Amino acid sequence: MKALYPGSFDPLTLGHLDLIKRGCSLFGEVVIAVLENPTKSPTFSLESRIAQIKDATKEIRGVEVCSFKGLTVEFAKRKNADLILRGLRAMSDFEYELQIAHTNRTLNQNYETVFLATEAHFSFLSSSVVKEVAAFGGEINHMVPERVATELQQKFK
Amino acid sequence: MKALYPGSFDPLTLGHLDLIKRGCSLFGEVVIAVLENPTKSPTFSLESRIAQIKDATKEIRGVEVCSFKGLTVEFAKRKNADLILRGLRAMSDFEYELQIAHTNRTLNQNYETVFLATEAHFSFLSSSVVKEVAAFGGEINHMVPERVATELQQKFK
Amino acid sequence: MKALYPGSFDPLTLGHLDLIKRGCSLFGEVVIAVLENPTKSPTFSLESRIAQIKDATKEIRGVEVCSFKGLTVEFAKRKNADLILRGLRAMSDFEYELQIAHTNRTLNQNYETVFLATEAHFSFLSSSVVKEVAAFGGEINHMVPERVATELQQKFK
Amino acid sequence: MKALYPGSFDPLTLGHLDLIKRGCSLFGEVVIAVLENPTKSPTFSLESRIAQIKDATKEIRGVEVCSFKGLTVEFAKRKNADLILRGLRAMSDFEYELQIAHTNRTLNQNYETVFLATEAHFSFLSSSVVKEVAAFGGEINHMVPERVATELQQKFK
Amino acid sequence: MKALYPGSFDPLTLGHLDLIKRGCSLFGEVVIAVLENPTKSPTFSLESRIAQIKDATKEIRGVEVCSFKGLTVEFAKRKNADLILRGLRAMSDFEYELQIAHTNRTLNQNYETVFLATEAHFSFLSSSVVKEVAAFGGEINHMVPERVATELQQKFK
Amino acid sequence: MKALYPGSFDPLTLGHLDLIKRGCSLFGEVVIAVLENPTKSPTFSLESRIAQIKDATKEIRGVEVCSFKGLTVEFAKRKNADLILRGLRAMSDFEYELQIAHTNRTLNQNYETVFLATEAHFSFLSSSVVKEVAAFGGEINHMVPERVATELQQKFK
Repeated sequence: MKALYPGSFDPLTLGHLDLIKRGCSLFGEVVIAVLENPTKSPTFSLESRIAQIKDATKEIRGVEVCSFKGLTVEFAKRKNADLILRGLRAMSDFEYELQIAHTNRTLNQNYETVFLATEAHFSFLSSSVVKEVAAFGGEINHMVPERVATELQQKFK
Repeated sequence: MKALYPGSFDPLTLGHLDLIKRGCSLFGEVVIAVLENPTKSPTFSLESRIAQIKDATKEIRGVEVCSFKGLTVEFAKRKNADLILRGLRAMSDFEYELQIAHTNRTLNQNYETVFLATEAHFSFLSSSVVKEVAAFGGEINHMVPERVATELQQKFK
Repeated sequence: MKALYPGSFDPLTLGHLDLIKRGCSLFGEVVIAVLENPTKSPTFSLESRIAQIKDATKEIRGVEVCSFKGLTVEFAKRKNADLILRGLRAMSDFEYELQIAHTNRTLNQNYETVFLATEAHFSFLSSSVVKEVAAFGGEINHMVPERVATELQQKFK
Repeated sequence: MKALYPGSFDPLTLGHLDLIKRGCSLFGEVVIAVLENPTKSPTFSLESRIAQIKDATKEIRGVEVCSFKGLTVEFAKRKNADLILRGLRAMSDFEYELQIAHTNRTLNQNYETVFLATEAHFSFLSSSVVKEVAAFGGEINHMVPERVATELQQKFK
Repeated sequence: MKALYPGSFDPLTLGHLDLIKRGCSLFGEVVIAVLENPTKSPTFSLESRIAQIKDATKEIRGVEVCSFKGLTVEFAKRKNADLILRGLRAMSDFEYELQIAHTNRTLNQNYETVFLATEAHFSFLSSSVVKEVAAFGGEINHMVPERVATELQQKFK
Repeated sequence: MKALYPGSFDPLTLGHLDLIKRGCSLFGEVVIAVLENPTKSPTFSLESRIAQIKDATKEIRGVEVCSFKGLTVEFAKRKNADLILRGLRAMSDFEYELQIAHTNRTLNQNYETVFLATEAHFSFLSSSVVKEVAAFGGEINHMVPERVATELQQKFK
């Protein structure tokens, strides 16, 4: 099966990476879809984020990396995905995730959002926490892939 | 009884409309008070929002539509309302709603905030979700009244 | 308006009493409906609970105290109530309350459950906490009306 | 793919049934595994529950109904399932579900628990709510399949 | 400082043990107070639980193990403790913990309940989950100290 | 013991002040560390906030007031603090607080974040609620120390 894993990945964390690995081993194929949102000003450009994800996933079979604009359900259809994959952290905005899953189902009944529980020791991790720690010069190697750590530290030097 | 239903209604959703109908049949009168908040830049002007609400509620007996600035409890007093009405969605910011209700009671003991549970199938709906879907060209007729859908689609064309 | 306030009140707490007073001043009449639930073995008999509530509310205009078996919405109809009243504590089982409110609306569209936020300093209070403290000989006068405190202390002597 | 959908189903609700249909169309095969839990005294015997589920799912392709004792991950392995399927209601015990999903992963890394968001209008529904309403003679046809409604009403007559 | 760490510890988990170690290094002394609750029928007797805790903490400086009946705040006073220590798991009953902390403060203003966040990878762990897995013959060595694992497995053989 | 109490305190509320008093009586010393966050535009300048806090705490023994930039755990180390102190309101972002506590522990194992439950009647209070009420000319004397109330009212005149 082919799963679409949408997100801003600004930047990719080890929690995202864990979910990608588990998604690939469970469904076989995961399309990592980086959302290009004109209303937001991301820390990393779309190109950098795609390069970071490609670098971090180059050893994982069944991964495709791309970007998209517009509705997730429409992009899932264009990519012939079977489902939309999302992670649920104990400390995540559970209500927001259910709200988006319900909204997507009203837009296209065929697209289920499938949730996997994020690993317990990644449950405190989010891109915003990583950026806050990096901005203050803190250690982030246990939070993000190597290349992301290097590029973040350069950005906040 | 007269209920004051305050909010930004940017824009009005079918969830709001359902609550207005139920408020009117329960209490007899509902004053829909559109908050004019100088610190925010709404998607629709105050005039458009008032026109949208008037259009959507023209068949409902006991509805008044107006705008206000300043404290909700003070406006409730000016409008001779008996209570403040708010909706609670399973997927709403329950803690924020209770925080505002407590704050309002410390400002004026006479004004109770009365909560009604939003209909289950509207529990995923919020103005921000509607705008996000509309911005990406998604179908919103099942989320907002007709006039709001048309005006939103024009805005994001 | 007439509100039906259903519960087991095993025993009545100062949080319940606060809600009864606010319900009466807001709606005019509150029917306190003590649920007789054959599947549960309450600490106080139905008669004791009704006597405790009558004693605690004797100074409050617009209060009626009675018991009922079966569905809340059906009893509300029999008592000609206009709505069902429930309290929401920050530390209450919000999801359970919404679940019951939705269930009741599917059983009888005419019966809305109206929630009031429990006073902040009562938000930690529940009948089970009161009984736990009383069982261990703790001070409970700041949690329950006087008669309830006396009868609880006798029970756990 | 083959999903294992474990639960007590005491009794099966329309929320469960909706999840079974969506699981089958998404994964192709769903094994409905009724947990036989010696420490609990269910309302319906294991046989009745299995018969009810078989009756309600007879038109759905890819469904298998059976019972099991012991650990879910071990039974999933015995049935050659690819994953464990669970529903997440906005008003469900999200934290308990994540707790069980994490526990199962520590017991067998190969078994992911995949969550689907329960349909919004079923989000208030649970077996315990159904039994409570039925016990008080309330209408339950909008909550459970026909056969379950009939057998529940006979039980509580 | 001396912290009182009350609980039923039925049985002690690695999450409890982690909190005990962190409490000792932070405050110097931790009194592990096993609650003897006549209204409950524990899996392990009071003596077994005390023996298990003593065995698991024998290498930790500053630990005392005892049992108590009645109010936590009163026992804290009898033991000359400075504060009450509790763990908060992301997946714990946060509202129940706050409810008990508030209740204890109304009973004795001098006793603060101090919370530490349970380690992320223990956040799914609780005594009831451990017993459920053990009852079904599952692996529990990653959840409880060795002696507890052995005694649990004997109990459920 | 010395506790570091970090925050933006923009402005100090009576809820903060209550926690400072309780922290001092529990640990002996509390360093109130006002975070200087270049990415945010606070309502009050750093100097005004420090002056407000010094004024409000001048009668409390064991208080030190200062500001810091960068990582909380690093500043805690520089100030020789023994722990980080935070308040938990029933209506606070519990998940965000746990996320920060876990993050800080991964950055420096030696720094525990210790939580105290905010007093029940302050549980609805936050700096943002205070500013919203003050902006609309509402009464705030029951929410903030006197000097803060005066300065806020001047700011929003």
